Amino acid sequence: MKQSELFTKTQKFAPKDEVSRNAQLLIRAGYVYKEMAGVYSLLPLGLRVLEKISAIIKEEMDKIGGQQMKNSVLQNKVNWEKTNRWDDELVDNWFKTKLKSGSDLGLAFTHEEAMTNLMKTFISSHRDLPAYPYDIRTMFRNEKRAKSGLMRGREFYWKALYSFSKNEEEHYKFYEQAQKAYQNIFRRVGLGDLTYLTFASGGTFSKYSHEFQTLSEAGEDIIYIDQEKNLAVNREVFNDEVLAELGIKNKNKLKEAKAIEVGNIFTLGTKFSEPLDLKFKDKNGKEHFVFMGSYGIGISRLLGTIVEVFADDKGIVWPAEVSPFQVHLIDIDAGDEAEKIYQDLRKEGVEVFWDDRPDKKPGEKFADADLLGFPWRLVVSSRSLQAGGVELKKRTNKEGQIVKTEELKNILKNQ
Amino acid sequence: MKQSELFTKTQKFAPKDEVSRNAQLLIRAGYVYKEMAGVYSLLPLGLRVLEKISAIIKEEMDKIGGQQMKNSVLQNKVNWEKTNRWDDELVDNWFKTKLKSGSDLGLAFTHEEAMTNLMKTFISSHRDLPAYPYDIRTMFRNEKRAKSGLMRGREFYWKALYSFSKNEEEHYKFYEQAQKAYQNIFRRVGLGDLTYLTFASGGTFSKYSHEFQTLSEAGEDIIYIDQEKNLAVNREVFNDEVLAELGIKNKNKLKEAKAIEVGNIFTLGTKFSEPLDLKFKDKNGKEHFVFMGSYGIGISRLLGTIVEVFADDKGIVWPAEVSPFQVHLIDIDAGDEAEKIYQDLRKEGVEVFWDDRPDKKPGEKFADADLLGFPWRLVVSSRSLQAGGVELKKRTNKEGQIVKTEELKNILKNQ
Repeated sequence: MKQSELFTKTQKFAPKDEVSRNAQLLIRAGYVYKEMAGVYSLLPLGLRVLEKISAIIKEEMDKIGGQQMKNSVLQNKVNWEKTNRWDDELVDNWFKTKLKSGSDLGLAFTHEEAMTNLMKTFISSHRDLPAYPYDIRTMFRNEKRAKSGLMRGREFYWKALYSFSKNEEEHYKFYEQAQKAYQNIFRRVGLGDLTYLTFASGGTFSKYSHEFQTLSEAGEDIIYIDQEKNLAVNREVFNDEVLAELGIKNKNKLKEAKAIEVGNIFTLGTKFSEPLDLKFKDKNGKEHFVFMGSYGIGISRLLGTIVEVFADDKGIVWPAEVSPFQVHLIDIDAGDEAEKIYQDLRKEGVEVFWDDRPDKKPGEKFADADLLGFPWRLVVSSRSLQAGGVELKKRTNKEGQIVKTEELKNILKNQ
Repeated sequence: MKQSELFTKTQKFAPKDEVSRNAQLLIRAGYVYKEMAGVYSLLPLGLRVLEKISAIIKEEMDKIGGQQMKNSVLQNKVNWEKTNRWDDELVDNWFKTKLKSGSDLGLAFTHEEAMTNLMKTFISSHRDLPAYPYDIRTMFRNEKRAKSGLMRGREFYWKALYSFSKNEEEHYKFYEQAQKAYQNIFRRVGLGDLTYLTFASGGTFSKYSHEFQTLSEAGEDIIYIDQEKNLAVNREVFNDEVLAELGIKNKNKLKEAKAIEVGNIFTLGTKFSEPLDLKFKDKNGKEHFVFMGSYGIGISRLLGTIVEVFADDKGIVWPAEVSPFQVHLIDIDAGDEAEKIYQDLRKEGVEVFWDDRPDKKPGEKFADADLLGFPWRLVVSSRSLQAGGVELKKRTNKEGQIVKTEELKNILKNQ
């Protein structure tokens, strides 16, 4: 894509009321637009990142038998009353609205009730189980304060998978597969080394759950990391009983750190299938409640987290697999050569963003490239051509190097 | 995909309160689930159709310079007060909600206000124009009655493109390109022969607009078709002035028909840029309001329309380009042969849905194939193998024919 054609532009400053670093950078670089606190529209570059993250999640969910669908936002209160989660006194993050007839509706902040109810249409026998529907979609939470940018939005993108199993054994077999799929996802989006499987509270669902926590000073959680075992414990369940259960003998070797919860997986058991009456018949015709689990990832939070943990003082730094483009081609007095390289790389399937703007100085173009944060910067100028080619620089390196034009493809394609 | 693994199943009956034919069929076949009147969740097969339609729309929008983004659902009332569209007395289809602080918010039913306001960040000079952002997303309309299934939902999928131009001339150049792109879209989803560019009222936006109307007895609009000119006039503007403008001399040769509005394009002019103060400076530094247009397609309505117009008494009939799968492979006592064909066709890139269920009778499998409505039915049985191959039947034909297995690929790939 040509930068001159993109309708967004970078900005020197973020809105004054924006206090989170991830949103400040994403707004300045033209990835998102702030509609109000906690509500961001995604601009073309931001949507590209969201779609790359979503595609990775989709691949990993499909691999473990997930089937994608789309739940509705509008929620019928009947289902939520059955599980005692409708009342604003009990659940404090509802957005509610009304039909013209006066009936109350809610905007989905999760789909356990809706999915459990929906599956009653399709589950009646042991032959219908297990089933793993999932959804990637916009969700809504009426947060009192929304100061963490993309990391805690009032309107946000979310993946939720629900597992429906015959019994605990079948459930835990899938639960472990889901754990591995989650590890694949965080590795692929570039957060693998910073993200710990974390033993945590199960909230109102179960005694314990597992979170995926990414180390960051911007995090709201405190975790205790066991480097050897490659796992962590959330402060909320950091007690002797839990440590014993995890086989952690020496409390003192654990490292305390701030972290962002980027995913969580819960064993729900029959907490939803009982009140919503989701049952199946086994081979002998005996009825049982379906055994459930839920598996969430905040996609816009993941996007915000990636910005928080990798950005430097010059701007965003995207890991290659989620970057909107791989190469930021900068054209300085190189005549037709820039266009030729642009077309050649595109033919090879390299995602190139070409700063073809004739009215911008080199310094402005370099600053934009740093702010936008694609993995490679490629400068074509009369000087680089005299030196034998083009100047290729990693976003994370200070210095670039001159590379022959004909070698470019191989370097970029073998990343 | 194997039918035994899909978590949805076909059903004999639709819910009693469902009166529209498109929703009855889509529910029975397991494409959608009815959450409440006018609100449907999309099941895996339904999502596949939605995504195929969306991909076609995206391609055609990108071709004319569109840049995809994602607007927010939650709407700040400030922008809507400026255009006098916030008040429920003036706009009767709002869903409204509140922040915890008590501030009013709306759920988007369109994005003229939000987009005009957003573009103030990026448009200040003539060099920033034209710009064509678009969005494919969930929208909300608080319909008093919702009896038309997917054709008029309270929550629905929608594509909206907004054009921002320097002047009327630049605007109409794009407007004509958009008309052609819309014709491509309706042709590609299979509705080309039934869909007419229709001269219509501009509502509160402008004197006239263009609609795309698809002939159907389920339609809510009445149009008058001029077959020669390949265009139509909506009854709401069917008067001598309009006929003269369109060069239609003989009123009597026009054919009256019921139709469904599947898309519309509007010239907005400065109706939004003036109240929201979206201006640009021309080459001489003189300020002008941006000249706008809007271009909508109801994607879930399009899905419902395709079902309405093509379904027969046995079920849905999908045009190939939007069908979730191209081939419904039915396995009757064919042993390993069915799996072999399944794998071979998949390797060739053919989308095959294999009814591998061992507990279903042939009659049930045939009924499901008709209800689901994929373009080709492929039966493999000991009888077909004895006759020299497999039985291939078009969904729209009564009889199939025996085809040699090795010829299958060529027939299916050359469609």
